[in-house]
Amino acid sequence: MNKKIIGIDLGGTTIKFGVLSVDGKLESKWTIDTNIAENGRYIVSDIVKSIQEYLITNSLTTDDIFGIGMGSPGQIDYEKGTVRGAYNLGWAEEQEIKSVIESEIGVPFAIDNDANAAALGEAWIGAGDNKPDVIFITLGTGVGGGVIINRKLVHGSRGAAGEIGHMLVDSKGFTCTCGNVGCLETVASATGIVNLANKYVNDFEETNGLVKLVKEGKASAKEVFDYAKSGDKYGTFIVDEFAKYLGKTCSQLANALNPNYIVIGGGVSAAGEYLLEKVNNVYLEYAFPTVRISTELKLASLGNDAGIIGAASLILK
Amino acid sequence: MNKKIIGIDLGGTTIKFGVLSVDGKLESKWTIDTNIAENGRYIVSDIVKSIQEYLITNSLTTDDIFGIGMGSPGQIDYEKGTVRGAYNLGWAEEQEIKSVIESEIGVPFAIDNDANAAALGEAWIGAGDNKPDVIFITLGTGVGGGVIINRKLVHGSRGAAGEIGHMLVDSKGFTCTCGNVGCLETVASATGIVNLANKYVNDFEETNGLVKLVKEGKASAKEVFDYAKSGDKYGTFIVDEFAKYLGKTCSQLANALNPNYIVIGGGVSAAGEYLLEKVNNVYLEYAFPTVRISTELKLASLGNDAGIIGAASLILK
Repeated sequence: MNKKIIGIDLGGTTIKFGVLSVDGKLESKWTIDTNIAENGRYIVSDIVKSIQEYLITNSLTTDDIFGIGMGSPGQIDYEKGTVRGAYNLGWAEEQEIKSVIESEIGVPFAIDNDANAAALGEAWIGAGDNKPDVIFITLGTGVGGGVIINRKLVHGSRGAAGEIGHMLVDSKGFTCTCGNVGCLETVASATGIVNLANKYVNDFEETNGLVKLVKEGKASAKEVFDYAKSGDKYGTFIVDEFAKYLGKTCSQLANALNPNYIVIGGGVSAAGEYLLEKVNNVYLEYAFPTVRISTELKLASLGNDAGIIGAASLILK
Repeated sequence: MNKKIIGIDLGGTTIKFGVLSVDGKLESKWTIDTNIAENGRYIVSDIVKSIQEYLITNSLTTDDIFGIGMGSPGQIDYEKGTVRGAYNLGWAEEQEIKSVIESEIGVPFAIDNDANAAALGEAWIGAGDNKPDVIFITLGTGVGGGVIINRKLVHGSRGAAGEIGHMLVDSKGFTCTCGNVGCLETVASATGIVNLANKYVNDFEETNGLVKLVKEGKASAKEVFDYAKSGDKYGTFIVDEFAKYLGKTCSQLANALNPNYIVIGGGVSAAGEYLLEKVNNVYLEYAFPTVRISTELKLASLGNDAGIIGAASLILK
């Protein structure tokens, strides 16, 4: 089959498109701005228009397209193909996506949430190496996740599976945006790492380096990692704290599910092997012996393309 | 189809057999002693003999039997149908089970580990109400578990999925039999509850009730719950500690997988609604809002029959 699949990664700032072969080769990609004016009423028609233009420009017809998949923020009804509660798009109320795109373009359409789509992308073509069982944890502004068992996304009884960012790590910890206390997100997201940096800053006597930056309110997660890598004592302490929380959570997930891989992605994971090694050391300490040798922690490898690749794969399921 | 399925629950003391209709009705059951003499070399032939006798006594032939499923301790290769490392049976080395039973009896045979079989039984006919996603936690001498997604057992990359008893709950806690520190099993198994009772006993000033019993080394998990239910202050404290550990772990599992139910079984769960309510209160505190209303904690309902019922269901998968 030489047909193409199209993946869409819908975000609050840009909409990313990718055209792939059915075996996952990304052949072309482009981006348009997300127009959130008037409660995002132009978003779906902009998507339709952009795909139609691509087809014309490349002398393709809908016969050349196997289908389209999309990852979206908000709460997804992946059977009905609707989205609601995607506030960064202006979509508070339920939006029809699948029915509109299928009738306007004339090819099958599938949708899931953006973290799940990225998880599928990494599991299929990225660090997951197309193994059957992969857990994806994305460390960004928040902490998201996706759980893939037997190459299928786990959705759970109400689509809330993969809320790894809200797994408890410290019952005496920070209050989370979800209303609970001590979620992983409060210590392992970009914001969470700053939470940690603020929490312990008065316990350290240094007057320069990261301590100074934090006291001036100028430290981001990137600075914490950069200082740590250059040997800063406080930076190292904070990264070690972060690694304890994330490594322990990885061990809990691995002991429950024994996946082939737990893949760590998102902006924070740009800290790379330095981050992975610290998280892995904690993980290995708490992984069950059989799990320790059969569930491996890896860094994500697709970067920003994970979303469009995984979204495209939705239509193959 | 009026054929029967046979389920076997192989334990270190007894072997339980059940004959079921294919829709899960338990029509007859019996038990034989487990002969662990000579490294358990008689176990498989005893099983074959017992089934053959049942067939003859009930005027049945192998044409009436759709297949046989078995839950076993130890490490299972469920594809090859072998067991090893089942030390309570004397089976250190790999044992051929499937090939022997299929050739001796002449019907298809399937095998999985005993906790997984019990999980399937509860998910199918018991508290799980045949919903697609069910996590089973069994609190006995140890803590075992089984994870069922889309009505299928999750095995993981090396069959170690469901090691819920080894999920970390306290990195400053007790050392576990697995070699790690702070596993759920060290505080939520029958032995674990006694660990907790011993740990805090000198913090309480009572000279009678559970404190006295613990100081005399006579308290079991059952006594801890019995005293707690009758209002004993120390008993209540220990059950509350236990509930915190188990409730938090349930929240972590639920936030990751959002199953329909988390079903709690095993000997310790005989403490019933009293136990469930305390665990549930902690669970609700740490469950993600969507998860809180869509993943419910329940007590197991099949008791000792879960193993034979779930084992029988293995052959239907």
